[in-house]
Amino acid sequence: MDSQSDSKKFRNALGQFATGVTIITTMGKDDKPVGITVNSFSAVSLEPPLVLWSLAKTALSFSSFNHAGHFNVHVLTSEQDSLSNRFARSGIDKFTGVEYRKGITGMPILNEYAVCFQCKTSLQYEGGDHVIFVGEVIDFDQTNKPPLVFHSGQYVDTKDRGIVNSEDLSSTVNVDYGIYRGDFFLYLLGRAYYQMYHPIVQAMEKAHINEPAFFSMSVLCMGNSLTTQQLRHILEHTGKIPTQKDFNTMAERGLIIITHAGDAQMVTISDYGRRVFSSLLSVAQTQEEDTLIGFNAGDLSITKKVLKDIVEKTNPGIPTFINQE
Amino acid sequence: MDSQSDSKKFRNALGQFATGVTIITTMGKDDKPVGITVNSFSAVSLEPPLVLWSLAKTALSFSSFNHAGHFNVHVLTSEQDSLSNRFARSGIDKFTGVEYRKGITGMPILNEYAVCFQCKTSLQYEGGDHVIFVGEVIDFDQTNKPPLVFHSGQYVDTKDRGIVNSEDLSSTVNVDYGIYRGDFFLYLLGRAYYQMYHPIVQAMEKAHINEPAFFSMSVLCMGNSLTTQQLRHILEHTGKIPTQKDFNTMAERGLIIITHAGDAQMVTISDYGRRVFSSLLSVAQTQEEDTLIGFNAGDLSITKKVLKDIVEKTNPGIPTFINQE
Repeated sequence: MDSQSDSKKFRNALGQFATGVTIITTMGKDDKPVGITVNSFSAVSLEPPLVLWSLAKTALSFSSFNHAGHFNVHVLTSEQDSLSNRFARSGIDKFTGVEYRKGITGMPILNEYAVCFQCKTSLQYEGGDHVIFVGEVIDFDQTNKPPLVFHSGQYVDTKDRGIVNSEDLSSTVNVDYGIYRGDFFLYLLGRAYYQMYHPIVQAMEKAHINEPAFFSMSVLCMGNSLTTQQLRHILEHTGKIPTQKDFNTMAERGLIIITHAGDAQMVTISDYGRRVFSSLLSVAQTQEEDTLIGFNAGDLSITKKVLKDIVEKTNPGIPTFINQE
Repeated sequence: MDSQSDSKKFRNALGQFATGVTIITTMGKDDKPVGITVNSFSAVSLEPPLVLWSLAKTALSFSSFNHAGHFNVHVLTSEQDSLSNRFARSGIDKFTGVEYRKGITGMPILNEYAVCFQCKTSLQYEGGDHVIFVGEVIDFDQTNKPPLVFHSGQYVDTKDRGIVNSEDLSSTVNVDYGIYRGDFFLYLLGRAYYQMYHPIVQAMEKAHINEPAFFSMSVLCMGNSLTTQQLRHILEHTGKIPTQKDFNTMAERGLIIITHAGDAQMVTISDYGRRVFSSLLSVAQTQEEDTLIGFNAGDLSITKKVLKDIVEKTNPGIPTFINQE
């Protein structure tokens, strides 16, 4: 691995091993605090309690860590990404505006952390272009805050892997009194649905389009002609099933075209109908943007996955042709 | 830190530093594959390419790693939790049923991994009750699968921290043709809502309760009397606003009690009304359980958070008293 590109590939591969993020501090000359962001931290031994981390021989802080004899390891919380970035840069006064106190060995302790380990440098080992510092943990303090995690060159958040059980759900409802809590899922789903659709419902009212007509046009825009029976079947789960009168009204207004094939009555969207539905869809798109821009992308993609799983699990048998990705 | 309880606390504190999970393999006597789950892996040096990990001196595999001179580090993917558990136990034949091939140094390579580093043991250092193995990376292979992550004694999943922007959303809709993709959020939200509520809508129809009555009873079960004006305001965003005729019908059926205070008309839920609503709520509870039990708990709690954020962001000014946690 001599070339620069190989070295980049190796760094990239190392990044596939997820790590927490630490800031390790010590005291430099003239009692000046020194610190650096490190993710090569790991546990070594329980008895005696040892931890290790590696520091580049070329690091500006190398001589401080080499001489001080002690250091403090701060395991960072999920909210400390900007502090992590600050202490990862070199050539700036990292401690400007950062509060700290001195620990039992005189080394700086930051105000916030998930855990802080106060260590005495007990061994230093050669490690290629780095030196491996092994520290004996003299004291530590733990706050149980969620961790900052680094993977594949970026910070990520963690989520637990538990499985929803009956008790998790029943605690949100008191059936005897007809009372549910604000995090009853069906309540949240219904309220989010109604509030998000409100501008679209208002636009529908203004265009004199009722819900059965809106849903019918939504399905018809997706594909070819359907029999009225097929369309009614597709919309059955919404409870907004178009009646013959709804179809007739839509045809009279030029929104759909009704044809006959034998006994079956076929419906197709008209160009005018597509334009009317498009204008409602653009209200929906604006509402989607107004609501969701700025949300956490990971959260939104998980929410979509959960909604898709719900749709799949509760599917009453809707043909898949309106169900495409 | 002499006592057992201190040692447990220290282990616990170390667990707050999140890590990936690796299985490290080597060849034992008689060409028998040997492997162990390790999370004390870390990067050391780029030039030469070095990595390290620590092994307890008391580990059964210690002499194999000590003598073989080579090892392979497999950084595990999020789907390899059971393999991780298997290789973390001792006293079983870990490789039974596990396929592997031999790498360039003759050491075992598992079929799946996020990254595999093939290493030559270049240094061994003393580390208390562990030995620190430093390996030079001879070759590596990367697959970019999502990582298995260990934090605070359990496996967790990761999610990225990006922010939703306009382009993420607009790609799901083609307004000109009135066409949207299956992951248009509003479509998913609406469809999940209608499908999940379908059994409740059916129960409502059976009980001859229309949507304005259902929503009115839902609000009235939560608290005290309201004026009809207040109640209509609260339900405005649903588009299912009860008319005077709806109130009269509900009162005639004994579901609510109408009283008068000056000019205002007050409505209160009756005991019978509470029982009717409770029976509908129990249908909702059953549907919630049938749908959500077995879902990933982390995913569901993120989904609830997103729905709450949507409710808050799109709140048309509903009083908070029906909005409690």
